Amino acid sequence: MSRQRLVVIGGDAAGLSAAAQARRLRPDDLEIVVLEQGPEVSYSACGIPYWIGGLVSDRDRLIARRPEQFAQQEIEIRTDTRAEGIDMAAGEVVAAGGERLGYDHLVVATGGRPTRPPVPGLDADGVHGVHRLADGADIRAAIAAGAKRAVVLGGGYIGLEMAEVLLTRGLEVTVVLADPLPMAQLDDDMGELVCAAMGDMGIDVQTRQPVREIEADADGAVRAVRTDEGSYEADLVVLGLGMGPEVTLAKEAGLQLGVTGAIDVAHNQRSRSHPEVFAGGDCSQTFHRLTGEPIHVALGTHANKQGRVAGSVIGGRPARFAGVLGTAMTKVGETEVARTGLCTTQAEDGGFDFRTEMIESSTRAGYYPGASPIHVKIITERGSGLLLGAQVVGGPGSGKRIDVFATAIWAGMTAEQLAGSDLSYAPPFSPTYDPVVVAARVSSRIEQG
Amino acid sequence: MSRQRLVVIGGDAAGLSAAAQARRLRPDDLEIVVLEQGPEVSYSACGIPYWIGGLVSDRDRLIARRPEQFAQQEIEIRTDTRAEGIDMAAGEVVAAGGERLGYDHLVVATGGRPTRPPVPGLDADGVHGVHRLADGADIRAAIAAGAKRAVVLGGGYIGLEMAEVLLTRGLEVTVVLADPLPMAQLDDDMGELVCAAMGDMGIDVQTRQPVREIEADADGAVRAVRTDEGSYEADLVVLGLGMGPEVTLAKEAGLQLGVTGAIDVAHNQRSRSHPEVFAGGDCSQTFHRLTGEPIHVALGTHANKQGRVAGSVIGGRPARFAGVLGTAMTKVGETEVARTGLCTTQAEDGGFDFRTEMIESSTRAGYYPGASPIHVKIITERGSGLLLGAQVVGGPGSGKRIDVFATAIWAGMTAEQLAGSDLSYAPPFSPTYDPVVVAARVSSRIEQG
Repeated sequence: MSRQRLVVIGGDAAGLSAAAQARRLRPDDLEIVVLEQGPEVSYSACGIPYWIGGLVSDRDRLIARRPEQFAQQEIEIRTDTRAEGIDMAAGEVVAAGGERLGYDHLVVATGGRPTRPPVPGLDADGVHGVHRLADGADIRAAIAAGAKRAVVLGGGYIGLEMAEVLLTRGLEVTVVLADPLPMAQLDDDMGELVCAAMGDMGIDVQTRQPVREIEADADGAVRAVRTDEGSYEADLVVLGLGMGPEVTLAKEAGLQLGVTGAIDVAHNQRSRSHPEVFAGGDCSQTFHRLTGEPIHVALGTHANKQGRVAGSVIGGRPARFAGVLGTAMTKVGETEVARTGLCTTQAEDGGFDFRTEMIESSTRAGYYPGASPIHVKIITERGSGLLLGAQVVGGPGSGKRIDVFATAIWAGMTAEQLAGSDLSYAPPFSPTYDPVVVAARVSSRIEQG
Repeated sequence: MSRQRLVVIGGDAAGLSAAAQARRLRPDDLEIVVLEQGPEVSYSACGIPYWIGGLVSDRDRLIARRPEQFAQQEIEIRTDTRAEGIDMAAGEVVAAGGERLGYDHLVVATGGRPTRPPVPGLDADGVHGVHRLADGADIRAAIAAGAKRAVVLGGGYIGLEMAEVLLTRGLEVTVVLADPLPMAQLDDDMGELVCAAMGDMGIDVQTRQPVREIEADADGAVRAVRTDEGSYEADLVVLGLGMGPEVTLAKEAGLQLGVTGAIDVAHNQRSRSHPEVFAGGDCSQTFHRLTGEPIHVALGTHANKQGRVAGSVIGGRPARFAGVLGTAMTKVGETEVARTGLCTTQAEDGGFDFRTEMIESSTRAGYYPGASPIHVKIITERGSGLLLGAQVVGGPGSGKRIDVFATAIWAGMTAEQLAGSDLSYAPPFSPTYDPVVVAARVSSRIEQG
């Protein structure tokens, strides 16, 4: 029997997880080829800000595994090899240079691309995304060359992280937002806490100002970012507007896109229009665990899991992705920010009858050194008391508490059940009642009248 | 209608929670009197080691609320007032001095007492429990007076914490255990990690050595701790053997004790032998959520909740305590230690058919500064994959991850469900797959063959 061939387009989280899982389940009868347009595979895009910030000394530390390591598992990696097209009828991927690579199984894992505002001047020298290692190198070079003033466009995760690291590198940092507050995935009252923390650090936050133009000097180097309210000098501009799906190839091949603009896939990661093709990671659409609604979330954890699902199915073992809660976390300075499930806007859009409660507590026993304030907001369904969402903003040790809420929501717990649960207590790590329990209890007490 | 009277014996977590909750539900028609034998109420016994260690500057910071604050809620606190007896037939508490205080409702919250080994010499000067603020003051005074060598008896939470703080205060510290390893609530492989961490800090850990005698000099001051294997010099000896229930009063009054030696109560905290009497906190027995078996756990979180349940019932609102998982957490130096649910021995005793998996991962993305090893061990039911228990030992940020397991176990999740859940990821806080997910996934993969 001749070996089948799996072709994977894209050599990061989703693609490589698919390849590795398929190999695990089919050690002998499958040829696996991964095409990657860039010079390296298996790198941590999420680590780029910290490399720029100097917290990670060496670019290579962001690379988890090298092609040689995959070769040992008989996974062939072709870097600097762009897939130019997919010939569905023939079952072939057309690689740069014209080589046609037949496949029995195909995984599209083309990843995401930084969202670019539709304004003139974006191609000026000194405007950078934070997506590939090359972007990190460019920004590091700009700082080394003497950049003094940075404007970060957008106040999501990447925006916050870039603002922090540029500040620690000694630049003056302005964050320019179209939204009224940073962290649009939070409720306004929580976003205000983040905004205040950024201000306290010395970050200039300019809100409600869509960018109109990136201004460049005669040599084409960026000079300022202009909004309706002002012009912000910059010799470095960073795009922190989030990641959209990279679907050029998929679109040309005729793979159906979903309402989010990402590739529409079933729960087993098969394309809904072409079930013989799999897609996963930042290029694919997924679904919200609570609402069932389609959603696009660019995050390495999901990419890994979705790739793994695709690899399992290709390997002959049924598997399905279980959905997302939109759990996310970051920090800006000492302030940790995390969220999971539905925020108020999402709960409204989802048609839920819900209540919200916000509590303030302490990360540690009040008397223990380093105790700092933590705000927890939870959203529960009125009547049932079911947990729908949670948000956390606070000092060191705050953020990871979101995982307790994520687990409770995943399991379908009510606030009352969570309030009764047996969470850990020790003075260096929490007050007698953990802030998670305090929030759950306040909510359940109000629910009960 | 004349007001009823609630008498509470014991002015810490359980007693005061009962009083406060009863007052909340019955603002007008209830007189509330709390008898406390010591000079203060509402103090954090768990904080005493850190006060001794100098991390908490002021003893008063360990006191959450003062009698005057309770007085504002019309809760009368009588400190330095020992309850000498309960006259069940008459419905009266006999206070020191002979005053008889009639009650309509009674809450027994007499707390715990440090376990004392049955050996000669325990009453030597320089042997201290870590229970009341006075103990903390005594140990601080001993250090100030020049104590140089401490022996800590026992390697549970208090033992570990005391060993750490005495070391930071410059003493030579020996921990003497009857058990083969510290932290008997952990499996041996996890306990070995703790033992190694203690050794690395410079704590001398002497295992498998029951204490035979506390030796004193001619003046009655402690001189050494003797076991079958050696004699360990000490000018300070700390009892870290855990807390038993303080039930002298309850026993004399005829309240039935359970198999653990603590007061036997129903889930609504009513005494099983005298349902008109409530008990809660360290003096009372509770039950394990997974096995239903009686268990005694001395911990402020449970005491607070149990007191609250008693107060609710007295206030006319049905309530029940939901059981414990035995979740607990501490640290020794930079090593965090936590556990929840069943350990291997408990799972065996409970008759479970189970498997265990231990994984090693990283507290943060491997490339992020401060990333340190974390070991996670989980216990699942064979066949169903239900989570039964988890243990964590690792660097900063490790311990609180136990709350995710505690929540998952509380909710009745399987390892596979937890592995699929949407936990947070950001490089400063976890690898792409959180160690919790890695452990759950390894377990579920093995379960599936």
